[in-house]
Parts: sequence; structure tokens; C-alpha cells
Amino acid sequence: MQIAILLYDRFTALDAVGPYETLGRLPGAAPVFVGARTGPYRNDAGSLTMVADAALSEVTAPDILVVPGGPGQSALMADGPLHDWIRAVDAGTTWTTSVCTGSLLLAAAGLLTGRRATSHWLALDQLPAFGATPTGERVVVDGKYVTAAGVSSGIDMGLTLAGRIAGDAVAQAIQLGMEYDPQPPYDAGSPQKAPAEVTAELRERSRFLLNGE
Amino acid sequence: MQIAILLYDRFTALDAVGPYETLGRLPGAAPVFVGARTGPYRNDAGSLTMVADAALSEVTAPDILVVPGGPGQSALMADGPLHDWIRAVDAGTTWTTSVCTGSLLLAAAGLLTGRRATSHWLALDQLPAFGATPTGERVVVDGKYVTAAGVSSGIDMGLTLAGRIAGDAVAQAIQLGMEYDPQPPYDAGSPQKAPAEVTAELRERSRFLLNGE
Repeated sequence: MQIAILLYDRFTALDAVGPYETLGRLPGAAPVFVGARTGPYRNDAGSLTMVADAALSEVTAPDILVVPGGPGQSALMADGPLHDWIRAVDAGTTWTTSVCTGSLLLAAAGLLTGRRATSHWLALDQLPAFGATPTGERVVVDGKYVTAAGVSSGIDMGLTLAGRIAGDAVAQAIQLGMEYDPQPPYDAGSPQKAPAEVTAELRERSRFLLNGE
Repeated sequence: MQIAILLYDRFTALDAVGPYETLGRLPGAAPVFVGARTGPYRNDAGSLTMVADAALSEVTAPDILVVPGGPGQSALMADGPLHDWIRAVDAGTTWTTSVCTGSLLLAAAGLLTGRRATSHWLALDQLPAFGATPTGERVVVDGKYVTAAGVSSGIDMGLTLAGRIAGDAVAQAIQLGMEYDPQPPYDAGSPQKAPAEVTAELRERSRFLLNGE
């Protein structure tokens, strides 16, 4: 079961690593990090580097596609070879997935038209322009398209999908293996739960972030 | 504020990325991935590669040290240059931290003697040999030593420490930015919560895993 995880410059590391550490632990999983070129990719902050072992042309029939998000997504919204590749592999996938603003890439490639989907809470309002209906859920399953909310939600998405693919016991073993018994010291993980001033400040800051830093 | 995150062969990716995505988002944070040599390091499964931008000799005075875990830890338990480096930088850190079996490296370097600490639930019983007292808590703070339980707990550790360093509002903004509003589809993240047969099977499998695969 090949799992293709897309890398690109200025991706968000946890967006990629959450699904990797969950789906990648399924029996028979063969994860592969793939990019427009092989080699190192710098993350959003520029201080973390992950390596793509395969070029897009080398990964033609993954069973699962994972598209992470990150500020670099905004530079990839125009139609072109990446969108062509996303559409081509999607034709054969069992599951096509995204985390965070990765859903905007799926949407821009035309895959979420008429579907329910999610994204980072700061990017949800960009989905309708592509014919997708944003939802406030953390993990949205619409047919074979599974989109997750911001960054850390890829862990929940991966476990959800692991259960559908291999059954509850396997997914639970993956959760136990990674000791995913979350105990955040604050309850501020969504715009509804965070203090209003924290949400407001982040929304203000994101005006710059979402416009390419 | 330099944050040194150790890489080594067969590390667990989320162990490193959880603290990175939390502590690394603090104002003024300068995270650096460091290894015995610069260059790529393969993770536990062999399918993910992260890059160390600095060698140990180049990072002499980090403010925070993060030691991730992973099966590769077991090959690093003998005293030597890595332990020397850990002890040397620890002398100047504000916080010395670990995730998962990373605590065994801190313990083997002599830093957890007489302290309370945690580790992956399957490795907790290895701590007493180094004079550390294992606890069942997910994040253990003993002086400047902060150890986290298995793999995903590094996110909770990072947020906890972010709050201590920069205050609640900053930590909450980091949590909101990464949309860390966990909603795992199962409640199987600890040996107490997982179905007994899932825990038993993982414990059985780990006999092989903990003996170097």
C-alpha cells in the first residue's frame, strides 16, 4: 500500500508527519515522500528540512495521497505540472487526503468540487471559490476524499483513516504505540475555544501570513 | 533563544517534530537540528529523512536541548562523544528536555539521577537503572529537566514549556495556530485506556522492537 506524501518548499512539517506516523504504521504501508524534484525541502520557518526520495514522475499509482499544507501552498495554486500529477494519481487512489491548507491544493486541482471539506480555520473561507463546502469538523470524509483541519489534525485524520482501512484494533495499536493520549495544558486549539483576544490577534497576524509572510 | 534538537539514525520523527512545532514557534526561537554529523538522518521506519544542519561541535550553548526518542536510542547508550556533548550543553541550558526514549539518553548521560522522569510507556521500567524515578504522567517537570511520554506527548510538553517561557497567551496562540484541538477517534492512547488485548499485543511485539528490531 503505497502512501505518497507531497513535499514542497515552505510546507508545515507536522502536517506531513502526523499522517506519516499514523497511516505509515499500517501493516504493509510503504510511505514515500515525493516532490517536484528529489532532495531536501525547507519548511515554513526555514529551520527544518525533510527529503523527498522520489520525484512526481516516479510515483504514478499511490494507494493513498497525502497533501500537507503550509504557507508554500499559496505559490502552487496555479494550474500546472503539480496539479496534473495530483489529478493523475487521484484517478487511481483509494484515498486522497490533505491536512491544513493542503485542501486548497486539492480544491485548486478540481478534486473537491461539490464536496464537503475542511482546512486550517484561517483558510476555510477560501474553499467555496473552488466549489467546495467548508465544514467546521476536524476530519471530513466525503467519498474517498479526506480533508483535515489545521496542522495537528493530521494525526486524528490518520487514525480515522487507519481504522477504516485496517479496523479498529490496528488503529488503536497505532494510537497506543505513539502514546496519543492528548493532554494539552490549555484548551485553546480552535477559534471557538481560545480566548477571544488570542483568536483576534492570530487572525490579524494571518492577514500578513496568508499573503506570503 | 537557541533550541537544539538532536537527530540520530532511527529516531522517531514525531518525537522531534512535536517540540519543534511548539517551542520553535516561540518569539525569538532559533531551532537547529543537530547531529553527530551534518546531513540526512533516516527515521525508525527508514522511509522519512530529516537533515541536521549543524554538527554537535557547532552547537555549544543552546538555551533548550530537545532529545527525541526512537529505536536508534538503544545504540547510543554507551558513554562517548554524544553523552559528553549532552552533558556539556546541559551545563548551560535553561531547559533540558526529552520525548519518549530520549529520556533514556539523558539518564544514561547521568542527568536524571535522583529525578522524576518519564518515557514511552514500554520503556518506563528502564529509568530506575539510572537512578531516575519513573512516573505515569505525560509531561514531567523536575527542575529544568522536562521529560515527555511516548512520541506524540512532545506536543503537550512543548506547549507546557512554551507557557512557562513566554506566558499563557503565547502558548495558547501557538496551540491555536497549529489547531491542536485533539479529537482522536479512539481512546486508546495509554496502556490503561487501550483494550487489554491491544496493549498485550503491543507489549509482546515490543520485546523484539526494544531489542533492536
